[in-house]
Amino acid sequence: MVTYANILDAHKRIEHLINRTPVFTSTTLNKLSGRNIFFKCENFQKVGAFKYRGVSNTISLLLSEARERGVIAHSSGNHAQAIAKACQEFGVKATVVMPKNAPKVKIDATADTYRANVVFCDSNIQSRQETADALISQHGYVFIHPYDNENIIAGAGTAAYELLNDYPFLDAIIAPIGGGGLLSGTSIAARGFKDDIAVFGAEPELVDDAYRSMISGRIETNTTTNTIADGLRTNLSPLTFNIIRKNVDNIITVSEKMIIDAMQLVWQRMKILIEPSSAVALAAVLSDRFPQKIKDVGVIISGGNVDFGSFFY
Amino acid sequence: MVTYANILDAHKRIEHLINRTPVFTSTTLNKLSGRNIFFKCENFQKVGAFKYRGVSNTISLLLSEARERGVIAHSSGNHAQAIAKACQEFGVKATVVMPKNAPKVKIDATADTYRANVVFCDSNIQSRQETADALISQHGYVFIHPYDNENIIAGAGTAAYELLNDYPFLDAIIAPIGGGGLLSGTSIAARGFKDDIAVFGAEPELVDDAYRSMISGRIETNTTTNTIADGLRTNLSPLTFNIIRKNVDNIITVSEKMIIDAMQLVWQRMKILIEPSSAVALAAVLSDRFPQKIKDVGVIISGGNVDFGSFFY
Repeated sequence: MVTYANILDAHKRIEHLINRTPVFTSTTLNKLSGRNIFFKCENFQKVGAFKYRGVSNTISLLLSEARERGVIAHSSGNHAQAIAKACQEFGVKATVVMPKNAPKVKIDATADTYRANVVFCDSNIQSRQETADALISQHGYVFIHPYDNENIIAGAGTAAYELLNDYPFLDAIIAPIGGGGLLSGTSIAARGFKDDIAVFGAEPELVDDAYRSMISGRIETNTTTNTIADGLRTNLSPLTFNIIRKNVDNIITVSEKMIIDAMQLVWQRMKILIEPSSAVALAAVLSDRFPQKIKDVGVIISGGNVDFGSFFY
Repeated sequence: MVTYANILDAHKRIEHLINRTPVFTSTTLNKLSGRNIFFKCENFQKVGAFKYRGVSNTISLLLSEARERGVIAHSSGNHAQAIAKACQEFGVKATVVMPKNAPKVKIDATADTYRANVVFCDSNIQSRQETADALISQHGYVFIHPYDNENIIAGAGTAAYELLNDYPFLDAIIAPIGGGGLLSGTSIAARGFKDDIAVFGAEPELVDDAYRSMISGRIETNTTTNTIADGLRTNLSPLTFNIIRKNVDNIITVSEKMIIDAMQLVWQRMKILIEPSSAVALAAVLSDRFPQKIKDVGVIISGGNVDFGSFFY
């Protein structure tokens, strides 16, 4: 059970470790949406994503004995970099299991920039877990799940907590949903800060497992992971499912075109880099599925780690 | 003759019209360069470029009779958008002559977003000027040159003035050089603020007319405009040449690869969009041509209007 008090504690614990990210606004996007949007820019967080909040909270709380054993995670994305950098800062040995087809830029950041030990696996969740499990049996590493972990969720909630401290008048707050760690933490922070705030999740139509889970009352899975929002391909865990079912008003789904258009708008008009997963939340606010009556909405920009492919060369 | 007092006056005149743009720093880039870099982020300026400073200063100073006649400019880039938006704000009729092969996104911004009257011409400077001249004879429009204009230069210098007010300890300041308006204003602001500051221009090797002009003592031209830094393809004017020759310590040239690498670094590490012309200044700071002894350097990020081509679709 993660509480508002856990988020306050997490914030005190990590505020000297993280960036207090800025909140951006855009006259153009306010006009376009007919409301005031407050972007909490976790793309400016360390490692370029909100993930650093939960990971630094979790590692701060590890007992020294566990820190000596070292940490392990599996991830092809932002969680990998967050684990690697946080462990580097804390002087803890980090092992990250990554699919061998992960983008080279993410492998390089994890292995070279933040000096984690990268172990490659096949590109499926079973191989990831088996590879990690084998290393855990062998070395006694402490496994840190990217979202099925209360300390991760409490850390993730500190972004919304900061946003609401800066803009306490918000009517609503929205965050993208993949595994549900960010939305879980966001919803606990928002409900704890004030009860009369609407909390929304934003999800690609192509991987609408959370949307369907809210309807069916059990954890649904996706038959495809073919969305541009690569951070949102995962399913809910029992922990995140229960928090979100209790705290979140609605999950709003958006098409791939809406995601790309929203991302393009932010890049071109606001001149900041956001990743496709973050654009999902703005796309939801710009859609006619977003409640008309909401005037001041906070959007958690989850990160800015974009795969540019061959854009530069 | 543009003086430091002109820049102070311009700043008072326009500060309620412009964005006081933030100054960004990056631990990664500081490590990479071995110095402290302070980025003055004019990519967050109105219309996404420093150009709005000079244009709003110039239009503020137009007599009401001239404002009634209307304003004309020719530009394929940021100057067009700055003219269009400033005229929209002031309620002045704007006509912008644009080459018919200008990027659609820039034509749309000028014509649709900021409601200027766009007149197309052929893609060469002669056709631009002839088209503008014909409209001036016919309608009596006031021509606003993008850099061969003292009020434009004084306005451009306000970016460096703000930067130095925030970070008075800077050893050096660097700006990209195309026609020389930004570097002229920057150099006057810097020299006026404190005499013992180094001032550099940054230029692509492929269009190194300013570099060669400083050596030969006369305005040189380019035989090619084939650089990715589309804002820096123009030549100096007598006005900017004389200011830069007097005030600027050195022009540092960089290769196309250095420009692209610098742009990629800023996008990926700092999560902000800067245009290739802005990356030229960072590339110069990262190069071994930049004086080793300089520890705190201000970089004017001139703009963030990037042509994404078919990146999104």
